[in-house]
Amino acid sequence: MRFLKQGFTRDDLLRINEDDLPVLAEEVRAFIVDTVTKNGGHLGSSLGVVDLTIAMLRQFDPLNDRIIFDVGHQSYPYKILTDRFDKFTTLRLKDGISGFPRRNESPYDHFNTGHSSTSISAALGYAKARDLLHEDRQVIAFIGDASLINGLALEALNYVHETNTKLIIVLNDNRHSISNRVGGFSTMLARLSANSSYKRIKNAIKSKGGVSLVHGLEKIRDTFKFMLKPNNLFDELDINYWGPFDGHNIKAAEKIFELAKDYDKPVLLHFNTIKGKGLPEAEANPTKYHQVSPAGEKKARTWSEAASQIAEELAMNDNRIVCFTAAMVTGVKLEKFAREFPDRFFDVGIAESHMLTMAAGLAAGGMRPWVFIYSTFLQRAMDQLMHDIALQNLPVVMMVDRAGLAGSDGDTHQGLLDIPWGRAIPNLEIYAPCDEATLKDAMLIASKRDGPTLIRYPRGAIPGENFASLVHDEAIVKIYDGEEWALLGHGPSVITMIETREKATIKPAVYDVRRIKPLDDEMLEDILTRYKTIATLEENYMPGGLGEAVGAKIAEGNHNVRLMRFGVPDVCVKHATQSQQRELYGLTPENILRRYEEQRTLG
Amino acid sequence: MRFLKQGFTRDDLLRINEDDLPVLAEEVRAFIVDTVTKNGGHLGSSLGVVDLTIAMLRQFDPLNDRIIFDVGHQSYPYKILTDRFDKFTTLRLKDGISGFPRRNESPYDHFNTGHSSTSISAALGYAKARDLLHEDRQVIAFIGDASLINGLALEALNYVHETNTKLIIVLNDNRHSISNRVGGFSTMLARLSANSSYKRIKNAIKSKGGVSLVHGLEKIRDTFKFMLKPNNLFDELDINYWGPFDGHNIKAAEKIFELAKDYDKPVLLHFNTIKGKGLPEAEANPTKYHQVSPAGEKKARTWSEAASQIAEELAMNDNRIVCFTAAMVTGVKLEKFAREFPDRFFDVGIAESHMLTMAAGLAAGGMRPWVFIYSTFLQRAMDQLMHDIALQNLPVVMMVDRAGLAGSDGDTHQGLLDIPWGRAIPNLEIYAPCDEATLKDAMLIASKRDGPTLIRYPRGAIPGENFASLVHDEAIVKIYDGEEWALLGHGPSVITMIETREKATIKPAVYDVRRIKPLDDEMLEDILTRYKTIATLEENYMPGGLGEAVGAKIAEGNHNVRLMRFGVPDVCVKHATQSQQRELYGLTPENILRRYEEQRTLG
Repeated sequence: MRFLKQGFTRDDLLRINEDDLPVLAEEVRAFIVDTVTKNGGHLGSSLGVVDLTIAMLRQFDPLNDRIIFDVGHQSYPYKILTDRFDKFTTLRLKDGISGFPRRNESPYDHFNTGHSSTSISAALGYAKARDLLHEDRQVIAFIGDASLINGLALEALNYVHETNTKLIIVLNDNRHSISNRVGGFSTMLARLSANSSYKRIKNAIKSKGGVSLVHGLEKIRDTFKFMLKPNNLFDELDINYWGPFDGHNIKAAEKIFELAKDYDKPVLLHFNTIKGKGLPEAEANPTKYHQVSPAGEKKARTWSEAASQIAEELAMNDNRIVCFTAAMVTGVKLEKFAREFPDRFFDVGIAESHMLTMAAGLAAGGMRPWVFIYSTFLQRAMDQLMHDIALQNLPVVMMVDRAGLAGSDGDTHQGLLDIPWGRAIPNLEIYAPCDEATLKDAMLIASKRDGPTLIRYPRGAIPGENFASLVHDEAIVKIYDGEEWALLGHGPSVITMIETREKATIKPAVYDVRRIKPLDDEMLEDILTRYKTIATLEENYMPGGLGEAVGAKIAEGNHNVRLMRFGVPDVCVKHATQSQQRELYGLTPENILRRYEEQRTLG
Repeated sequence: MRFLKQGFTRDDLLRINEDDLPVLAEEVRAFIVDTVTKNGGHLGSSLGVVDLTIAMLRQFDPLNDRIIFDVGHQSYPYKILTDRFDKFTTLRLKDGISGFPRRNESPYDHFNTGHSSTSISAALGYAKARDLLHEDRQVIAFIGDASLINGLALEALNYVHETNTKLIIVLNDNRHSISNRVGGFSTMLARLSANSSYKRIKNAIKSKGGVSLVHGLEKIRDTFKFMLKPNNLFDELDINYWGPFDGHNIKAAEKIFELAKDYDKPVLLHFNTIKGKGLPEAEANPTKYHQVSPAGEKKARTWSEAASQIAEELAMNDNRIVCFTAAMVTGVKLEKFAREFPDRFFDVGIAESHMLTMAAGLAAGGMRPWVFIYSTFLQRAMDQLMHDIALQNLPVVMMVDRAGLAGSDGDTHQGLLDIPWGRAIPNLEIYAPCDEATLKDAMLIASKRDGPTLIRYPRGAIPGENFASLVHDEAIVKIYDGEEWALLGHGPSVITMIETREKATIKPAVYDVRRIKPLDDEMLEDILTRYKTIATLEENYMPGGLGEAVGAKIAEGNHNVRLMRFGVPDVCVKHATQSQQRELYGLTPENILRRYEEQRTLG
């Protein structure tokens, strides 16, 4: 490559001749495609913002200024161009570069993300801190059109007016979001983008090249006033709107940023970009290329596929069933459901809170809503689960995907809170199936319950076999008898338990606690009288998990049983593969056997 | 009273002559003032919507149609006029009428609320259920201007466009919210309300009286188009906007509702109302009269007062400290802080999620944000606590007010989840002080921590005495030695523990577990070796609480200790006084002693 070489720094970027920048952009895109194809990751968004990132990095001082990426899956070019080119091939690998901005990774990263729509709030905080500390720096929120419709971003947009501070919001409008764009805001953005004044603005900016900046700014403001659609949401909120601009014209974008830097009020810069830019197949199919799997990853049947297929079968026989997703139709595999039941399928965009409350409304109205959501994103709608669904005991089914250790997306994407948080919610039943038979049975139970049910299942392949002969509605399934000790776990831990038993000298009993709430107290009491040691395994944070629940039972019954707990400790989980993460936290047969032997020796 | 008499039903309402309706409205207002003055409750909002409620109840069929109140504290006139006049004097009392809509209280209530901004989402759900089930009913979301700026409502407004269904949104704009109105949306609403076309619209509607409805509708639409401000947020979102109208003109409001019923698209009806209408002191001071305490309630110094006063003292010596509230400045007693440190005080409106993420931004920018929030409303920002604050280990202090059993507002307002949910969050420290000394020490610790801290404190009066000689930074404070058994609790449970000890024959030790996370394992281990029975007391849901944490320690250490747990069970907590609630769930010395004796007898 001509520019992008070993040791490339942000200072190198400043030295490149303006006319050569498109070449650099091509190199960055090629490097991203190359790396993501190998390691997996978010492709389309990052390709789409290479030109804008170059322009920002030349116009702003990324060490002193605060560029805050929303979601952060579009931060690859930023990482590459801020002194991380050399390490970028370790993207998303254990101990490597994170797929999202991380403050402890680089002084260029100013706010950790992973979930969407935080950037404007965070930027307002940074801007106010700057004002109060009398610092001199630019604060920039870089946000995509999909993130803009989330309540958090909208609350922040509303609050901009109150803060009376300087802030630049860069709206990266690729008109695609993760899957399809949703709602009235999208329509408004589309209207803005279709505005015929676009070309005139481009020309106006071009012509300002020679004039002094302040003067140019004044002129541009006047010109804008005339040329732009007179009213739009942003104007209504007293946020100055400039745009739309071509997000792939680096020179023009630099000029816009230069003007915005000198503007002393909140301003939103609207850029149109092409998701997947430069990779024809990604441009043509932006949803498919939003996130790609590492090359060579095997395509076994996934939990998501199994869950959505069972949902289709249930929906065939019960026309009260409707399904929801928040911009994750491909992730949770609801494409077929959406095609087969278009009237009974809702993709609300990245609006998890609204999704749950609307589901509650449908349930109150006599329907049976099923909400498909990643565990980590359910965190964004906990009050809706409690206040709107559980307190009214409404029959909404939460299909919680990517529960447990979730791999390479890192600490923001682990699914470790659904069980501790869900266990404290009244009326809610919680299931964690370990195979397709228990998944199907849990979904059958949920479909008949007159109250809310949460079913959690992990990321990745569903086991090809079923582990136990299951009795319908059984809360704790005995898989193996044993001597001296028993293993109690749920979900993918069941496989670990079976492997532990295979490797053990003293064979433990193995119980699948597939219904975590309510626990089957009677069966649990029986187990506690049979074994001297109980080990609990759980892929969630341990406070509030199965281990504590069992511990309380042991202590309340004054059972002479020693408890060993295995789960995810009280830490931020770093990116790595799921099996590396299980290894790290001791969720392995070897560690379980080692600890069992240790305590046995101790007596 | 002339109309409002024993046995008044909604059918009586239909029989009242149109011209007499203002008299009825006066009677309803007088009755509300009378009841709320005795029982306590939300005054201003309910007084402001009496006229609109009468108009709605005459134009819609409240059994078949679905009128959904946002927040619900303005539902008193609706309750009185839908066959609950006779019971209304039991408002907010144990076993009496709830202060919020409750489906199990009346067939006229269609969606439970208490928290704000759920109505549009719920109404969209009801509307879709109606469409899918081929039912014929109107669906109405009745929402105030303050609720509109919350992310949940904004997500729903954005989604209206996608649903392609008939929906009526009634915007009750009293321009006051709970305290002051916040943000760009408010400015927009003010601009709309200032629109000079208002009188012309009123006249236009008046003149349509004689014309056929459909024809009248057509005309009105055309007239509106001409008369209204051509662009506003709602138009941008493809929601038809009609208004603003006088919300105290019952006849005109009926006409608007009549027109809206026949309109086949989503429509927003904007009414201006006066908060506290009819009660001069409430009209003059709407914030003070938003919620009133029962007559005769003693005005002891509250936890909120103590907490805000300590915050002022800390802020005096540390100019990095800034304080946040989400529309609760009077509730959390930050009025003085706001006056003394206007630049360091942020009232973001009902926007809890944005509040926490903006606080994270300020912390990342070098400041020390303190967020004052009711426990029940923290539920709305859990992902922001996890994703934006805890994962980045930012020094944000969560001052969690109204934690524990919270009394008469009912199941939607109890503060029972902060501990179970908070315990599972990495990097977060959790304190539950029991008196002013421990509160102050916890706040001092929090002010020096380089990570997030949650301090929870109850509703009501702070004890006049301090219970133990406290060592700074001590995690478990021994208050009394004892024999055979020990009581471990936190917050207001400490008083219960001391009273239990006073009444006990076998004197228990008493420990204040003021730092709940992380637990002081060493001290806890020591306690577990000293006593045969441990009783834990906690005012939160028990799964994930102190009792389970202690239970796990007992079981892991194989201690020969019996555990007894006291806390809030896995149920929806009904409205009653705090002491009635404590009685109900056995958080009393009598119950603790009774259960201790029982298990002692059992051996």
